[in-house]
Amino acid sequence: MIPRYSRPEMVAIWEPRTKFRIWFEIEAHAGDAMADLGTIPRENAQAVWAARDVEFDIDRIDAIEAETRHDVIAFLTHLSEIVGADNARFVHQGMTSSDVLDTTFNIQLVRAADILVADMEALLAALRRRAFEHKDTIRIGRSHGIHAEPTTMGLTFARFYAEMDRNLRRLKTARAEVATGALSGAVGTFANIDPRVEEYVCDKLGLMPEPISTQVIPRDRHAAFFAALGVVASSIENIATEIRHMQRTEVLEAEEFFAKGQKGSSAMPHKRNPVLSENLTGLARLVRMAVVPALENVTLWHERDISHSSVERNIGPDATVTLDFALARLTGLIEKLVIYPDRMQDNLHRFRGLVMSQRVLLALTQAGVSREDAYRLVQRNAMKVWEQGADFKTELLADPEVTDALSRDEIEEKFDLGYHTKHVDTIFDRVFGPA
Amino acid sequence: MIPRYSRPEMVAIWEPRTKFRIWFEIEAHAGDAMADLGTIPRENAQAVWAARDVEFDIDRIDAIEAETRHDVIAFLTHLSEIVGADNARFVHQGMTSSDVLDTTFNIQLVRAADILVADMEALLAALRRRAFEHKDTIRIGRSHGIHAEPTTMGLTFARFYAEMDRNLRRLKTARAEVATGALSGAVGTFANIDPRVEEYVCDKLGLMPEPISTQVIPRDRHAAFFAALGVVASSIENIATEIRHMQRTEVLEAEEFFAKGQKGSSAMPHKRNPVLSENLTGLARLVRMAVVPALENVTLWHERDISHSSVERNIGPDATVTLDFALARLTGLIEKLVIYPDRMQDNLHRFRGLVMSQRVLLALTQAGVSREDAYRLVQRNAMKVWEQGADFKTELLADPEVTDALSRDEIEEKFDLGYHTKHVDTIFDRVFGPA
Amino acid sequence: MIPRYSRPEMVAIWEPRTKFRIWFEIEAHAGDAMADLGTIPRENAQAVWAARDVEFDIDRIDAIEAETRHDVIAFLTHLSEIVGADNARFVHQGMTSSDVLDTTFNIQLVRAADILVADMEALLAALRRRAFEHKDTIRIGRSHGIHAEPTTMGLTFARFYAEMDRNLRRLKTARAEVATGALSGAVGTFANIDPRVEEYVCDKLGLMPEPISTQVIPRDRHAAFFAALGVVASSIENIATEIRHMQRTEVLEAEEFFAKGQKGSSAMPHKRNPVLSENLTGLARLVRMAVVPALENVTLWHERDISHSSVERNIGPDATVTLDFALARLTGLIEKLVIYPDRMQDNLHRFRGLVMSQRVLLALTQAGVSREDAYRLVQRNAMKVWEQGADFKTELLADPEVTDALSRDEIEEKFDLGYHTKHVDTIFDRVFGPA
Amino acid sequence: MIPRYSRPEMVAIWEPRTKFRIWFEIEAHAGDAMADLGTIPRENAQAVWAARDVEFDIDRIDAIEAETRHDVIAFLTHLSEIVGADNARFVHQGMTSSDVLDTTFNIQLVRAADILVADMEALLAALRRRAFEHKDTIRIGRSHGIHAEPTTMGLTFARFYAEMDRNLRRLKTARAEVATGALSGAVGTFANIDPRVEEYVCDKLGLMPEPISTQVIPRDRHAAFFAALGVVASSIENIATEIRHMQRTEVLEAEEFFAKGQKGSSAMPHKRNPVLSENLTGLARLVRMAVVPALENVTLWHERDISHSSVERNIGPDATVTLDFALARLTGLIEKLVIYPDRMQDNLHRFRGLVMSQRVLLALTQAGVSREDAYRLVQRNAMKVWEQGADFKTELLADPEVTDALSRDEIEEKFDLGYHTKHVDTIFDRVFGPA
Repeated sequence: MIPRYSRPEMVAIWEPRTKFRIWFEIEAHAGDAMADLGTIPRENAQAVWAARDVEFDIDRIDAIEAETRHDVIAFLTHLSEIVGADNARFVHQGMTSSDVLDTTFNIQLVRAADILVADMEALLAALRRRAFEHKDTIRIGRSHGIHAEPTTMGLTFARFYAEMDRNLRRLKTARAEVATGALSGAVGTFANIDPRVEEYVCDKLGLMPEPISTQVIPRDRHAAFFAALGVVASSIENIATEIRHMQRTEVLEAEEFFAKGQKGSSAMPHKRNPVLSENLTGLARLVRMAVVPALENVTLWHERDISHSSVERNIGPDATVTLDFALARLTGLIEKLVIYPDRMQDNLHRFRGLVMSQRVLLALTQAGVSREDAYRLVQRNAMKVWEQGADFKTELLADPEVTDALSRDEIEEKFDLGYHTKHVDTIFDRVFGPA
Repeated sequence: MIPRYSRPEMVAIWEPRTKFRIWFEIEAHAGDAMADLGTIPRENAQAVWAARDVEFDIDRIDAIEAETRHDVIAFLTHLSEIVGADNARFVHQGMTSSDVLDTTFNIQLVRAADILVADMEALLAALRRRAFEHKDTIRIGRSHGIHAEPTTMGLTFARFYAEMDRNLRRLKTARAEVATGALSGAVGTFANIDPRVEEYVCDKLGLMPEPISTQVIPRDRHAAFFAALGVVASSIENIATEIRHMQRTEVLEAEEFFAKGQKGSSAMPHKRNPVLSENLTGLARLVRMAVVPALENVTLWHERDISHSSVERNIGPDATVTLDFALARLTGLIEKLVIYPDRMQDNLHRFRGLVMSQRVLLALTQAGVSREDAYRLVQRNAMKVWEQGADFKTELLADPEVTDALSRDEIEEKFDLGYHTKHVDTIFDRVFGPA
Repeated sequence: MIPRYSRPEMVAIWEPRTKFRIWFEIEAHAGDAMADLGTIPRENAQAVWAARDVEFDIDRIDAIEAETRHDVIAFLTHLSEIVGADNARFVHQGMTSSDVLDTTFNIQLVRAADILVADMEALLAALRRRAFEHKDTIRIGRSHGIHAEPTTMGLTFARFYAEMDRNLRRLKTARAEVATGALSGAVGTFANIDPRVEEYVCDKLGLMPEPISTQVIPRDRHAAFFAALGVVASSIENIATEIRHMQRTEVLEAEEFFAKGQKGSSAMPHKRNPVLSENLTGLARLVRMAVVPALENVTLWHERDISHSSVERNIGPDATVTLDFALARLTGLIEKLVIYPDRMQDNLHRFRGLVMSQRVLLALTQAGVSREDAYRLVQRNAMKVWEQGADFKTELLADPEVTDALSRDEIEEKFDLGYHTKHVDTIFDRVFGPA
Repeated sequence: MIPRYSRPEMVAIWEPRTKFRIWFEIEAHAGDAMADLGTIPRENAQAVWAARDVEFDIDRIDAIEAETRHDVIAFLTHLSEIVGADNARFVHQGMTSSDVLDTTFNIQLVRAADILVADMEALLAALRRRAFEHKDTIRIGRSHGIHAEPTTMGLTFARFYAEMDRNLRRLKTARAEVATGALSGAVGTFANIDPRVEEYVCDKLGLMPEPISTQVIPRDRHAAFFAALGVVASSIENIATEIRHMQRTEVLEAEEFFAKGQKGSSAMPHKRNPVLSENLTGLARLVRMAVVPALENVTLWHERDISHSSVERNIGPDATVTLDFALARLTGLIEKLVIYPDRMQDNLHRFRGLVMSQRVLLALTQAGVSREDAYRLVQRNAMKVWEQGADFKTELLADPEVTDALSRDEIEEKFDLGYHTKHVDTIFDRVFGPA
């Protein structure tokens, strides 16, 4: 997590004060549940809520932890200082630190997922808007980086929309994966705590009770969570790479928005670098690098060990903060991306009709020309275009063998771009729903 | 994919003959759809089905490919040899190779997922059976590899069941991720093929039409697929590690089944190695290693490049074949795993009641003893156990300061294992549904 | 390991017959050493060498393994059938299977490294030749995909040479990492075998004795080996990406060699796809994916477990075979790469001198023009180039404020490409050594 | 990088003030070199050194960067405020930001490597001391977690020493990989800066000039660097795993040092958790996760893009800080690790001599007993041990068929532990050099 690539709302989720606030809520709700069950006195349970509006003194907690070497005990001690030892002695009864820590980590991940879902929705809105804006903006489609057949810029945005819409679903699934809590005691047997306490607390905190836990919540959930983030990150890289290609000097079909006054822009007008897209490429790698350790974290010894803990202290904040920043950056980039339809036309016509050679070939054979002859006819005209800079359609129209087989109209029709865009509406209906 | 770690049904999915059979079906169904639309003559479309029962000559196809350097053309040429050139010339019309290749790859992944789902269901059945069998078999729970509090072997199986049940859901989601097909032409615009052909073919083959494709089906789907496999593999390692620990010489609470006659077993009866579990640990790494390249595959240049292709030729078969083998091996291992309840009792009592020290401490404070005194009382008796091999309960019962605070019955009760198992049924209900 | 991406020499290293041949050599040399030490009779040791020229019957060995479930015992049994039970009973004395298996694996890796080193030397020769061929072929240097300042094609080849030369050194280091053997018995104590046997066998097989082994050779060595392969693979991707960019339709500064008769080339002359480079991008991912499991393999339980084994059975052949193929493919690609110096000139001049704006700006300030004025002057002329397609130098020469500060010769000099290539010889000397 | 897992010296390398100090030194030395060459006035070059003892105002630099959006320009502006605009205008002449940034990053990595090398040397000293301390402390060797044959604790430490000694060499190689600097201008052609400036600056800063750079130093160097760190991390996990196993309740051959007064220790004397080793397992994953993105960073577009930058801002500090902390933690852990030789004896004799069954079997066959009979004899006595808790040697001595073949002394000799330790000195000589 680098400040440079962070946004405050997501960072706040991972701050100590947030963590302690969640700890408090878990303990206080658990107290209520125990009071309901008659395990502890109602008045003591209620008294703990006095800390609801108190700002915890993090320095004080740290000082206690430095002494006790135990973070949860440090917090409980501080809580006791606030609500009084008499009330505090019923807090945390029958629970283990992991009950608090694991449930808290999941709450943080759920909140992070909520932000990521919102980020994704904003990105989808931007992609959708640009897709419709450029639904009919013709550009050349490329396979292997080589001109293939025409497509539209709107289709490019639409496919990114569809991909990110799948990622939205994956993020929601990921959120559900980790939306569980556990208050099941030392090895998960509920020996010292009633399962109804877990149910009550989870309900209050918007979680499902973990059906079976050990001392910890099982880590396959978190592996699935971070794997989903890795897929989202890869899609970000996919879009970023498209933009980097479009902004290449020789292509220049789009540019990242560049503020008017931004220094140096007008003295070197060709030198506008797609630095945001490149940055997104790197950020994608940062998010992805959480996937392997998250997978390695699934294996724990018996009812738990803490090998996963240091990993999660890192990848929990890092992967979510970085992905949040990346999604927001990508949204801004898409919203303001400068599109150059004229350049798209220039590039499309760069080889003066050659990209239509396939259609002409097909038309000739359908008109009864043998495959060998059709190929020879296309080839000899194509070569004039390639080697002498001629125009393909002009050459075809001037070739008697071609015009014997195809009428002028038929030839002209092969160069009609509408042929390639006739199903754009159908595709848009599929992606965005019927208009 | 190593033969040693392969099973024939999954391997068959990835064999050339299967691939060609799927190619044929795509082409033949597409022909029907085109005939429906009037694009090609009905009789030619029907004639292609003559190849339905013909075994394709793979050597012949390879020979043509060696010449043409194009696998799909080689196949189509061979198909033409079977159904006749007149009929064949309408085959593949308006399609690109990628339409066939990508749809086929997804069909293979879907079939692979079906096998993996069945594998998982078999594993779940085994875990469930063993869970109920050992629902009440007491063993010591361990955190950090150190004795903590009692639990039961059934709970261990039950948590593996719950984890694998989540993995079953992930596998089904993964299957849905890749259950799409595309017949959208050179850059995905349907310029030369009607979208209804795609819809028809996908319907026949049990796929959904890809809402928007380029020349290829978007690879975020496959990244999500292989990521899910990686999570499943990590859970396999989790179970395998538990078994390896249980079979350690000093623990010996379980052993992989060892056939009676197996050489060497009785001359070195202590030397039965958990080689299947160790093998599963390695196989998990093999499955997992597909995740990163699958994530890297998401980014393609413009409407496609083929950087993903060599990766998928490898990880497609390798990850699915290895995971299929691993799931089957794990199922057999679980089914036959030899459990030693007596050893579990021995281990549980290894420290003669010390694992109950926490409960005694709590009882003393609840009985009004100050926290400092309670701690001192527990400590002095615990030390006799630790250093002199005494029995904890005996010592407590002989300590007047303890018996002043707690009655004999109260002390005895603290050593009642039923205290730890009282919620096992509740947990089982949560995991397996109400009895 | 996919046949399509394999070369026979490297594949042969990993074939059963090679493995058995190495096993035989280890056993036979060990016999000699034991005879030297008087541990076993000389005549029996010598008699074993009778199998030197016998082709082992792999089906027979497999059949025995199917029965005994032990590969080394199966081999020894077969060896006994060849050399006679009397002689065979001294074979393998005091050794464990791991002694044979681990030493063999290292020999295979060393042989694989030898091929990779030779591959790399061939690649270096190709890069060197192309570097000198195009030492002075001017092209535009690009940062962020945007034109920056001129460089030469030779410098591009030279930097790939330098990078691959570092990789050659890494491969040699990797070879040394795994060039050890171990014959140290069950847990590495040499309880049943003299350390001098290990020394003798290693010397005969070109290995160093592993200073301290357990039952196995430590796996940090193999992790370092596969990590080195991963770095080499990444450099391959780096070069492949440069070529893919150069072959883009809009750039077209180079093309992968395309055989004259290759179908389709002349009817669609623009459609020559950089499929080899794209394939290399994917192959790089395949090689790299061995790195993480190799790192995970380092941790073994106590004196060994076999979790690493299934991983190595896969990544040993796969990573080396794929990297061998990739290096050879890249070498052929570099050797035959078609370079288009004219297109490089076209691209360089695409913005009619704008890439020199930085030099002009500097020259103006050095001539005493204030920074603000210099910037204004460059900007107003640059804008004419950018917006109206003018030529930058022509505009500058026609701008009195500019010519007041700089003479015609000074302005002309700023557009002299020699300015950018004046240190090419120095760099070549650094990379290739003094001419 | 988590404060909890950080040490100040390594953290300091990555602080802004360190970075700016290095930037200053590069610029100031470059000025001297340019003055030597007569490119800039000597007095201006010298005047810049006035900032040598001035603390840079980081807030001021940040404020300028917020405006200019360019970190190097912000620094140079601040430098200009210190040394005066007249002197400052010669600073950075002909250089690009990357010259400063890349050379600085490498200096930081070199300094980090120096600390890691020192860390490793401290770890080696600790391992060496413990190895000699326990050279003859017998313990059971285990394969697959199962008792195999005796070894010594000293051998365990010695093999960790040997492994870490290889890692020391790898760290030194990694340091050399990145110990280069580049001041080669916009695309690496030295168009605006003399190569001798690069040579001078590198010499002053303890670097080698990068033989050929583009705008950046090639990233294969950094990939190799982080890959080496990944191997070291894996070895840390290897040692940590051994300790975790040794501290298991049932094994208890060693314990992490536990301070006397540490709360809870004496009331639950069995509950001392190997939390440091578990933490090291997680930290190893954190260090390792830098490897894949570092490999992905090798591919840059043409003469540079900035996709690598965000990755390096993260993994540069994170991987080195975490590895430094982990090495130091491991060193402390090894130094204070509590070893229990008595428990090792208990475990070794757990199966009352059964681990010697292999030796007895061999001795019987060598004494002329047929393999089948020998096996039967060992088996029937082994079974008494396994099933009835008898002592293996006692049983053998009481079995007439055994004593017919072997004398009492011969049988006794098979249980002599000295047999297994006779080559310990040889191995120590190999690892630590002759005594």
